Amino acid sequence: MKAEIITIGDEILIGQTLNTNAAFIGSKLTELQIDVSFTCVVHDNEDDIKNEFKRSFEINDITIVTGGLGPTHDDITRKCVVDFFKTELVQNSEVLSDIKKFFEVRGRQLTKTNEGQALVPKIATPIRNSRGTAPGFWIERNNKLFIVMPGVPYEMKGMMENFVIPELNEKIGERKIFKSTVNLLTTGIPESVLYDRLGNLDELLGGASMAFLPSQFGVKMRITAQADSKEKSQNMLDVIEQKIRSHVGRFIYGKNDDLLEGVVAKLLNDRNLKLSVAESCTGGLIANRLTNISGSSKFMERGVVAYSNAAKVELLKVNEDTIAKYGAVSMEVAMQMAEGIKSVSGSDIGLATTGIMGPTGATPNKPVGLVYIGICDDKICSAKEFRFGDDRLLNKDRTSQAALEMLRRNLLGISYDD
Amino acid sequence: MKAEIITIGDEILIGQTLNTNAAFIGSKLTELQIDVSFTCVVHDNEDDIKNEFKRSFEINDITIVTGGLGPTHDDITRKCVVDFFKTELVQNSEVLSDIKKFFEVRGRQLTKTNEGQALVPKIATPIRNSRGTAPGFWIERNNKLFIVMPGVPYEMKGMMENFVIPELNEKIGERKIFKSTVNLLTTGIPESVLYDRLGNLDELLGGASMAFLPSQFGVKMRITAQADSKEKSQNMLDVIEQKIRSHVGRFIYGKNDDLLEGVVAKLLNDRNLKLSVAESCTGGLIANRLTNISGSSKFMERGVVAYSNAAKVELLKVNEDTIAKYGAVSMEVAMQMAEGIKSVSGSDIGLATTGIMGPTGATPNKPVGLVYIGICDDKICSAKEFRFGDDRLLNKDRTSQAALEMLRRNLLGISYDD
Repeated sequence: MKAEIITIGDEILIGQTLNTNAAFIGSKLTELQIDVSFTCVVHDNEDDIKNEFKRSFEINDITIVTGGLGPTHDDITRKCVVDFFKTELVQNSEVLSDIKKFFEVRGRQLTKTNEGQALVPKIATPIRNSRGTAPGFWIERNNKLFIVMPGVPYEMKGMMENFVIPELNEKIGERKIFKSTVNLLTTGIPESVLYDRLGNLDELLGGASMAFLPSQFGVKMRITAQADSKEKSQNMLDVIEQKIRSHVGRFIYGKNDDLLEGVVAKLLNDRNLKLSVAESCTGGLIANRLTNISGSSKFMERGVVAYSNAAKVELLKVNEDTIAKYGAVSMEVAMQMAEGIKSVSGSDIGLATTGIMGPTGATPNKPVGLVYIGICDDKICSAKEFRFGDDRLLNKDRTSQAALEMLRRNLLGISYDD
Repeated sequence: MKAEIITIGDEILIGQTLNTNAAFIGSKLTELQIDVSFTCVVHDNEDDIKNEFKRSFEINDITIVTGGLGPTHDDITRKCVVDFFKTELVQNSEVLSDIKKFFEVRGRQLTKTNEGQALVPKIATPIRNSRGTAPGFWIERNNKLFIVMPGVPYEMKGMMENFVIPELNEKIGERKIFKSTVNLLTTGIPESVLYDRLGNLDELLGGASMAFLPSQFGVKMRITAQADSKEKSQNMLDVIEQKIRSHVGRFIYGKNDDLLEGVVAKLLNDRNLKLSVAESCTGGLIANRLTNISGSSKFMERGVVAYSNAAKVELLKVNEDTIAKYGAVSMEVAMQMAEGIKSVSGSDIGLATTGIMGPTGATPNKPVGLVYIGICDDKICSAKEFRFGDDRLLNKDRTSQAALEMLRRNLLGISYDD
């Protein structure tokens, strides 16, 4: 089964909005073993939209469209669907009652504009929207599927989960070729070093394929195998994964959708450990990443964003003389911050960052990108120096990732160095 | 001038990586008044890549390709370029010396794999890479441009800024139609209410076009006008913006690339005010957003992530009886947290959040999505209740946005209610 994802909206073409919808749908179709062959973004323009509808409908089994279904005048997808399939709009009473209920619950007034959203193409099965007002459309023609959903990610996701994925799953039925994919997530090792350490790839992979995907969070290895049963393709992967781990296992923090913060959270909770974080240069990013994990209240005792020296001294008991002697960005201060937050909060582990994220703040001896990360547990306090780049936000990401990785290796007893 | 952006890489098709490159390039081309007519993502597959090269090169003046130039075996873009333009690879000595230098500076060993990256298509001008090892290619043929860059965002951005944008700017020369665009950023008002409050849009816009773009951070209005001079199109926009502000001005926190955290940072710095933030449910997100702004050390005194009740009592002087009586998620505790962080830190303003982000933590009286935000300045302390949805990460985003908006309105003396 081949699918194309069409996203409608100038805001994506001109780079004002990231195309998270195509990514979400792409990942869900891939899980269903549907081959996403192409994704594209089209102008808010009737001719462009209808041309792409035609091209995709001809060559694909499934076309999924998002965007342009809102209540305002610039949303033209519904009209294009009606024209393309030569059908008409009819009012759907279930959708109308959904919309009325949506406004009732929120204590808001229903507007004429919203009421018009209950008009759906006659040949479509409406996809009901539990999170907003615009319905989606499910159309079957010539043994092909044409699915339309709103562009608001939260609403689209609700429709995918409650309706589209279960329906697609049923349609797919018996499969002949089974693909399996695994992503191994590494951090703290450059792409070319990783590549070289793996040795002969053809030998390693034995017919499977592999891609290296670098980012500021590390390098992801994506391995895909196919066979005539799900079990066989999965077995191939297991063997390859084992081999890879024997070469570079210490750098692998997780698999697939794992997040480093989630891996660390699980380790902490499994051991009933409390963590506190003292952040200078990361400014709350580490605490924010950890608290994105549901259940983080169990291990996360507190976080302190100690931007000012006063805060470092008062809240973290950093020695004023140490700051005066070595500077706030130093190995010594990183270590004292970690020690301080640990003892003040009574946590099992203290983690601390201090550095120069840029673009300003550099001194002759301390360039932008210089970072110290400290970690303290019941046995030992240590700190490590890092030199990152010159982009503030990337530096924050890299620092938070390195700090969480130091924490992971501390918990597992793996040394941080190669 | 019409352009297409082609992104190569299965990792984007299958939704593992967001297509931030197309967004960045799209926004830069738009600034140059180049019409981004289409963007697409293509399989790591030679035939698919060459087909899309052909289609785009035929109908567009500019084709920009990213991805698949890395040092590993799965990167096939260079080969496709060579085949498509029927040219060959030659070693470029400048690129080779760039690569050698790159490794030298980092004290790393040059590998054979990396050395091979100095081979570039004969007909191309190499685009040198100051941030990585793979060069890009600039090809001119039949009065059309074909530009290829690596997929690593940081490297691609360096090439865009240092080479591609200045070169394109020169190529473009005299223009006939001038487009201007403004984005007005609102928060705290639903899309349909905003739409209705603006009244008759045709009258308001007088020939310009407008789109409404909702997200968890608010609704963006994008207005585009065109005329035969830059000045005229800009004047049209100014008139429209003024009219819109007369209807819904209090909800507009910024324009174009403004971030609410940046707007607030500027207000605080202009007034020489110090801010401290006490976060429970947002877990560091507000501090993180504020410290993303360069220069935030001037106003950001400290942040506390007080997840545990103990931290709320110790660090923020919240009254234990208040927590026992009203619960940690309450108007009263939000107010005391804001008051506490302000007085403990000696800041001018204290901002605090407490709420239930989900998926767990709800009680019969307190559903997921219930949030209280407190704010305290030298004159008054107040708190406000919000009811958001059931998605943890969206709830964190929404809460941080509402808190920063309360701060903005406090600084400007605008009431938070409609």
